[in-house]
Amino acid sequence: MAKTNNDEQFKNVISHAKEYGFVFQSSEIYDGLSAVYDYGQMGAELKNNIKTYWWKSMVQMHENIVGIDSAIFMHPKVWKASGHVDGFSDPMIDNKDSKKRYRADQLLEDKIARYEKDGKTDKAAKLQADMDEALKAENLPRLKELIEEHEIACPVSGTKNWTDVRQFNLMFSTQFGAMAEGAEEVYLRPETAQGIFVNFLNVQKSGRMKIPFGIAQIGKAFRNEVIARQFIMRMREFEQMEMQFFVRPGEEMKWYAYWKEARLKWHTALGTDPAKYKYHDHAKLAHYANAAVDIEFEFPFGFKEVEGIHSRTNFDLTQHQEFSGRKMQYFDNDLNEDGKPYGNYIPYVIETSIGLDRMFLLTMINAFEEQDLSEGEKTDSRIVLHLHPCLAPIKAAILPLTKKDGLPEKAQAIMDDLMLDYNVVYEEKDSIGKRYRRQDAIGTPFCITIDHQTLEDNTVTIRHRDSMEQQRVEISALNELIESRVSWKNLLRKS
Amino acid sequence: MAKTNNDEQFKNVISHAKEYGFVFQSSEIYDGLSAVYDYGQMGAELKNNIKTYWWKSMVQMHENIVGIDSAIFMHPKVWKASGHVDGFSDPMIDNKDSKKRYRADQLLEDKIARYEKDGKTDKAAKLQADMDEALKAENLPRLKELIEEHEIACPVSGTKNWTDVRQFNLMFSTQFGAMAEGAEEVYLRPETAQGIFVNFLNVQKSGRMKIPFGIAQIGKAFRNEVIARQFIMRMREFEQMEMQFFVRPGEEMKWYAYWKEARLKWHTALGTDPAKYKYHDHAKLAHYANAAVDIEFEFPFGFKEVEGIHSRTNFDLTQHQEFSGRKMQYFDNDLNEDGKPYGNYIPYVIETSIGLDRMFLLTMINAFEEQDLSEGEKTDSRIVLHLHPCLAPIKAAILPLTKKDGLPEKAQAIMDDLMLDYNVVYEEKDSIGKRYRRQDAIGTPFCITIDHQTLEDNTVTIRHRDSMEQQRVEISALNELIESRVSWKNLLRKS
Repeated sequence: MAKTNNDEQFKNVISHAKEYGFVFQSSEIYDGLSAVYDYGQMGAELKNNIKTYWWKSMVQMHENIVGIDSAIFMHPKVWKASGHVDGFSDPMIDNKDSKKRYRADQLLEDKIARYEKDGKTDKAAKLQADMDEALKAENLPRLKELIEEHEIACPVSGTKNWTDVRQFNLMFSTQFGAMAEGAEEVYLRPETAQGIFVNFLNVQKSGRMKIPFGIAQIGKAFRNEVIARQFIMRMREFEQMEMQFFVRPGEEMKWYAYWKEARLKWHTALGTDPAKYKYHDHAKLAHYANAAVDIEFEFPFGFKEVEGIHSRTNFDLTQHQEFSGRKMQYFDNDLNEDGKPYGNYIPYVIETSIGLDRMFLLTMINAFEEQDLSEGEKTDSRIVLHLHPCLAPIKAAILPLTKKDGLPEKAQAIMDDLMLDYNVVYEEKDSIGKRYRRQDAIGTPFCITIDHQTLEDNTVTIRHRDSMEQQRVEISALNELIESRVSWKNLLRKS
Repeated sequence: MAKTNNDEQFKNVISHAKEYGFVFQSSEIYDGLSAVYDYGQMGAELKNNIKTYWWKSMVQMHENIVGIDSAIFMHPKVWKASGHVDGFSDPMIDNKDSKKRYRADQLLEDKIARYEKDGKTDKAAKLQADMDEALKAENLPRLKELIEEHEIACPVSGTKNWTDVRQFNLMFSTQFGAMAEGAEEVYLRPETAQGIFVNFLNVQKSGRMKIPFGIAQIGKAFRNEVIARQFIMRMREFEQMEMQFFVRPGEEMKWYAYWKEARLKWHTALGTDPAKYKYHDHAKLAHYANAAVDIEFEFPFGFKEVEGIHSRTNFDLTQHQEFSGRKMQYFDNDLNEDGKPYGNYIPYVIETSIGLDRMFLLTMINAFEEQDLSEGEKTDSRIVLHLHPCLAPIKAAILPLTKKDGLPEKAQAIMDDLMLDYNVVYEEKDSIGKRYRRQDAIGTPFCITIDHQTLEDNTVTIRHRDSMEQQRVEISALNELIESRVSWKNLLRKS
């Protein structure tokens, strides 16, 4: 039963996101583009605020972290060095009748789930073990054998008429330049991290950075996901917020522990219930890592990764040194235990990598509440987004009680003053109650109502989103009152 | 002579941009990727500040403008409707010996310039007229004829062995999805504007927007430029800040005039000499426009477009209505002169479109000064970036006079307080003079020096970047002093 409620809640968040201008399907008038979404007028503000929180927390608040903005296009050799050209792929299989393509491991996973549902736990366990072994050995013929042995049929054609399993690279590629013969094939970056690695020396030298130091970046990345689902959880075009922290070899575990804790604190500083978060250590490590943990959030469809902290060793810099022929070393003139400089080395790297779109979804889901406000026989309800005031798209709504008696003019004067500091809106249509509800639905922390008394004593009513309490305050006190809640300073102190 | 100085100044800006971490060549360790650049640790901050200024000025300061963030990937039909699939191309010609490809019109332009240099003004004028006529008629064979008639040779091979002239589309394309047969071809958007048009109804309805209203967006766009040059002036991957303002048909010229003036004001509010800017009316209008003007800035290589204001009529929305089959209309219930509602119509559009990278380059060039500080026989100089304090990457540098006597600890305490509000740096290495120069070179408006007197009376020296004047102030007064110069509020009031 709980699952159904969660499914329903998720659906409600998705439709709310569309109705109030947070997220639209991309190219919706053309029936959409699969696994691509646009952020609407509220979504763009919320997304920008999440970016700002991350950037301020990482770059502004850390003396030894700087931020860059590298291009999506990179030299093709970058992806040879990083291993993406050869290894960033999924095992795919086509059904010859339906012409549909599937991820081989996903077909097997579905079968395992079916066995489990049918109580055939032995069969499920056996298939799981066989599949894991085949995946580990990258044994593609064996994956096909398993699909055939377990009589898996195409969900569309219903037949078992399969092609061989082949690797399918997830990077998008395009032709670059306009040379007469053979334009260069370049890739849309599948991660922002490599833009940091290739600029390691440029940043270290021009910024005179001393180890340990970090380079942060926010930007788009692209993956040609075969199975893209769950709204903005897994998209073909998405945005990452990544930071690579360069440390002395041998000190990586200390910093890994530091960032593991620091990053969770960043999440919970927003006021999210810590019980909604958990760490998930990677059992199987990527080829470049010697430790890795996910920070998972309890989405309606279960605990899922929202951020990863990875100890990437010196893998990437070493690879770039080899492929580019440039020394990717740092000279460390601090003294070691023997009183000698540490000297030249390729730094080790701790990475923190958060999916901005997932963080956005998490924020929407966590903020969303359908609140029953019924009293006695009078039924009433509201949808409210309990967004942290720093993240709220609109900080305050300025609402004249009526459209006459000079109230709009008075309201406009307050608006003109507040808009210099905050994203605020002015609304005069509909009843005050309806206007409050609309602001609740987009998470506006303050509604400021201008009434006839305002004209007499320069006070207004300020109504708080979460408590719905109203307070009479001087107009001259508004700025400080809003600032006390929406100031980044207070949030950064906690993060 | 002036030209040489300008060339030299431009070169100096480019090398300064690299040396101080503003702009790096993309994938530099792999010898770069043509016409793609990365923003370094100072560049990313400066670029973000330009974005913030634009966004606040357009979205926060206008009640009737909202901002969105649409995806780079869009449905391929979008670019059919917009005319980009069929018309967004350059006429290209290949030399069969060198295998090099050229823009046919560029070869002719170079020839015209040669004629003019050689005093053959009649020949130059004739070729210009012939070329314009051929381009207007999209007569590709005629372009080839002109190249042959004027005996233009390939600069590489030196031969006149040319292919036919063909249209070459400037959009990058990639294969989307993982279907067994024929993945879909999608394009990287060549402009952000279409992301606004296809979301027109979504935003208008979910935001209950009333005409006139605007939708703003900042984002990447991509063009496979054949000739990419002048540093970050013309890149294959670039960023735009665009706003589409939807108005009642017949009122577009009023709003065109409004935005033409408003946008120039935005530029000059930064303190740039207004004489560096001029309007350039388009003599030849694009197929979708009924008026268009560029705001040009005097770069070292001449007046060049930095922003365009275009009256795009109802062309785009009409095209999307036709290609998507969805009504792209707005119902206007305001009353016209006859006392009847205006009713349904497809709005007209005024576009303001600014190249973020060009604005960045403009800002760097305009701020850059090599200042002679020689006094009597003592020669001295500095490089200083006179950036508007709102745009400066670092707002203040905290500098303990020496590394001992508790000065670093005192400085650190000031740092810890200021960093909650501002992007500040701490530096203790080298002489104070050298540290001042480094901050001048990245445009930091304030240097705060902590000396022995600070320990006694809690005052510090604050040194101003442009005047180099020093002032003794209380530590407790620092925040207000900085705020008075870097606050967005003051800039927004002027813009």
